[in-house]
Amino acid sequence: MTTRIPSEFEAGSVGLVETQYFQSEQPMPLESGQELASITLAYETYGALNAAKDNAIYVCHTLTADAHAAGYNSPTDKKAGWWDNTIGPGKAFDTDRFFVVCANIIGGCMGSTGPASINPATGDHYGMAFPVVTIGDMVNAQKLLMDHLGIQRWFAVTGGSMGGMQALQWAVAYPERVARCIPIATTHRLSAQSIAFDTVGRAAIMSDPNWKGGRYYGEDLPANGLSVARMIAMVTYLSEQSMHAKFGRSLRNAEAYTWDFDPEFSVETYLHYQGDSFVKRFDANSYLYITKAMDYFDLGAGANSLVQTMKDVTADFLVISFSSDWLFPTTQSREIVRALRMNGVDVSFMEIESSYGHDAFLLEVDEITKLVRGFLWR
Amino acid sequence: MTTRIPSEFEAGSVGLVETQYFQSEQPMPLESGQELASITLAYETYGALNAAKDNAIYVCHTLTADAHAAGYNSPTDKKAGWWDNTIGPGKAFDTDRFFVVCANIIGGCMGSTGPASINPATGDHYGMAFPVVTIGDMVNAQKLLMDHLGIQRWFAVTGGSMGGMQALQWAVAYPERVARCIPIATTHRLSAQSIAFDTVGRAAIMSDPNWKGGRYYGEDLPANGLSVARMIAMVTYLSEQSMHAKFGRSLRNAEAYTWDFDPEFSVETYLHYQGDSFVKRFDANSYLYITKAMDYFDLGAGANSLVQTMKDVTADFLVISFSSDWLFPTTQSREIVRALRMNGVDVSFMEIESSYGHDAFLLEVDEITKLVRGFLWR
Repeated sequence: MTTRIPSEFEAGSVGLVETQYFQSEQPMPLESGQELASITLAYETYGALNAAKDNAIYVCHTLTADAHAAGYNSPTDKKAGWWDNTIGPGKAFDTDRFFVVCANIIGGCMGSTGPASINPATGDHYGMAFPVVTIGDMVNAQKLLMDHLGIQRWFAVTGGSMGGMQALQWAVAYPERVARCIPIATTHRLSAQSIAFDTVGRAAIMSDPNWKGGRYYGEDLPANGLSVARMIAMVTYLSEQSMHAKFGRSLRNAEAYTWDFDPEFSVETYLHYQGDSFVKRFDANSYLYITKAMDYFDLGAGANSLVQTMKDVTADFLVISFSSDWLFPTTQSREIVRALRMNGVDVSFMEIESSYGHDAFLLEVDEITKLVRGFLWR
Repeated sequence: MTTRIPSEFEAGSVGLVETQYFQSEQPMPLESGQELASITLAYETYGALNAAKDNAIYVCHTLTADAHAAGYNSPTDKKAGWWDNTIGPGKAFDTDRFFVVCANIIGGCMGSTGPASINPATGDHYGMAFPVVTIGDMVNAQKLLMDHLGIQRWFAVTGGSMGGMQALQWAVAYPERVARCIPIATTHRLSAQSIAFDTVGRAAIMSDPNWKGGRYYGEDLPANGLSVARMIAMVTYLSEQSMHAKFGRSLRNAEAYTWDFDPEFSVETYLHYQGDSFVKRFDANSYLYITKAMDYFDLGAGANSLVQTMKDVTADFLVISFSSDWLFPTTQSREIVRALRMNGVDVSFMEIESSYGHDAFLLEVDEITKLVRGFLWR
């Protein structure tokens, strides 16, 4: 196995990084009325915090990502962090100038407190005894980390998809702590269709006999259910165009139909592979909790309209959507932009032409880089 | 329980109908190279066949429907057949003038030969020993019924969704036997995205421990897997708009979030109900075989373009699509229309404005009725 020293990583890489752990021993109240006795947040930082501590950017992650947003945790890592193409020297979130922070969300399974964690009250895994958490709770936990780091105000908060929801929540819940907000490919509330896809994913997990009411730790995992949930989600992350371009109707055996029920079309093989590899890295209970948090998120809920909810926002905004994203389509970004503008907020908005669907926020690097740098350096 | 005599059914109903059974004891060759030793087709007819036997219309059904397209099988039936709103006296397919025939497809589970049938070679249920069948095989079986009924030429063949695929196949495979063809909300081949949804449905069924390689008859059914498959499919049958109008973000408990994982949003409750009720009426193995037949269907496959495949078509066409159908969008109907026109076929084409998504072909009764009557009576 070849190992690399940091200077050997490609230009623009932040190189080797170490995941750190922040512990808060104070009980943390939750939106549900319940509380978490204590929390741990796994987090990473890239670049250097300046003396004034005013160059920090917080990156919020998606449903299935983690604190490892950029660089390599080990010289033998084959893959860099999940948003390495936008975080690093000279990149969109330029670590020559900015101090970038990313933490695994609470409810997650990548080092932060979640359903797979040990419940201090019982000494056993929480499982479904873990309290329901919201996007607001996730942000409140990130706020504890912010205070721990001694940062008064984020230079910017950003994120794509569910990360964008957290970015919006930051700007609404802590207006004085956020100077700039860059929500990407996101929404202020899920449509019935998006809730429907989450519903099917949860049904697949909870109807897997191995799920056993969430008490499967140390036993057979509900891998079949979680795999099906991942397969459904993957379909929503791609566009019809990108699936056509990537797979079309091509076959594993290009010569002829196999006349059996093994995965045969390339798109079948792809989805099965995605499902199978996901179950090796992700906890099924976390999938339930995080999709539920997404379903619950609604900045225009109750008596409040979105305009009303955003009345105290002071951050400048860059809102980015993608033309072929049908999970969180541009129409939803426009509603956010409209509500911000009605509150007199400084908003730049761009719909990027892309065939990649929802996944575009991870792939349209050039356009995102130009837009983000233009916004952060103006 | 109240019972009705036929005259008591609402105006426009064909009243009481009896499902009939056609047996063919000849081995039926299949596209795969295998054969079925014999076949049974469950079918119904509405209206009267005239002396010239030239007033017969064949209705092809969808993935999960059956031979019972119109009327009531019993005076105590609460629901009429699945396309009762278009078949009957004075309706789109007017039984005062036409003799309408509908048979359950082979591979199905509603009276025709399928994986739940007894394999004459073993005396046991076929299960996965049932040969893979295609849309072409389904139509070949319908052709045997046509010959049995003594019909030389269908006045028209029609169907929505997978029924439309069969209608297209009829016009291509038996051009001299089809005078008119009305494919509705359909496609000449599935996109990668549609194959992807079928893939997830099959994965849900085949990963259910109760599926046991298809050998579950007389034992616990793979109900969880089939339910999840149905839930996924239901999402694709509705549009984002219709889901928004029907459910929005409304809650079972309108007062507040329940903070648990029971179905809570109205759309969740709806999907769970749809999944649960589907498993009571449908065989999981049939679901595998029929979705596979849809995936395999490709009128432009191999060296042939769609234009080439359609070169011998003589039927007049009425092609109908729906503006919000994202499963089989209008672009796919346009490809069919284009190929037909390039072959000099007489084609009427209409995209109906509708918010109902793919399900519109069951719901936009007024528009369909006007278009179909205009086409059939011209």
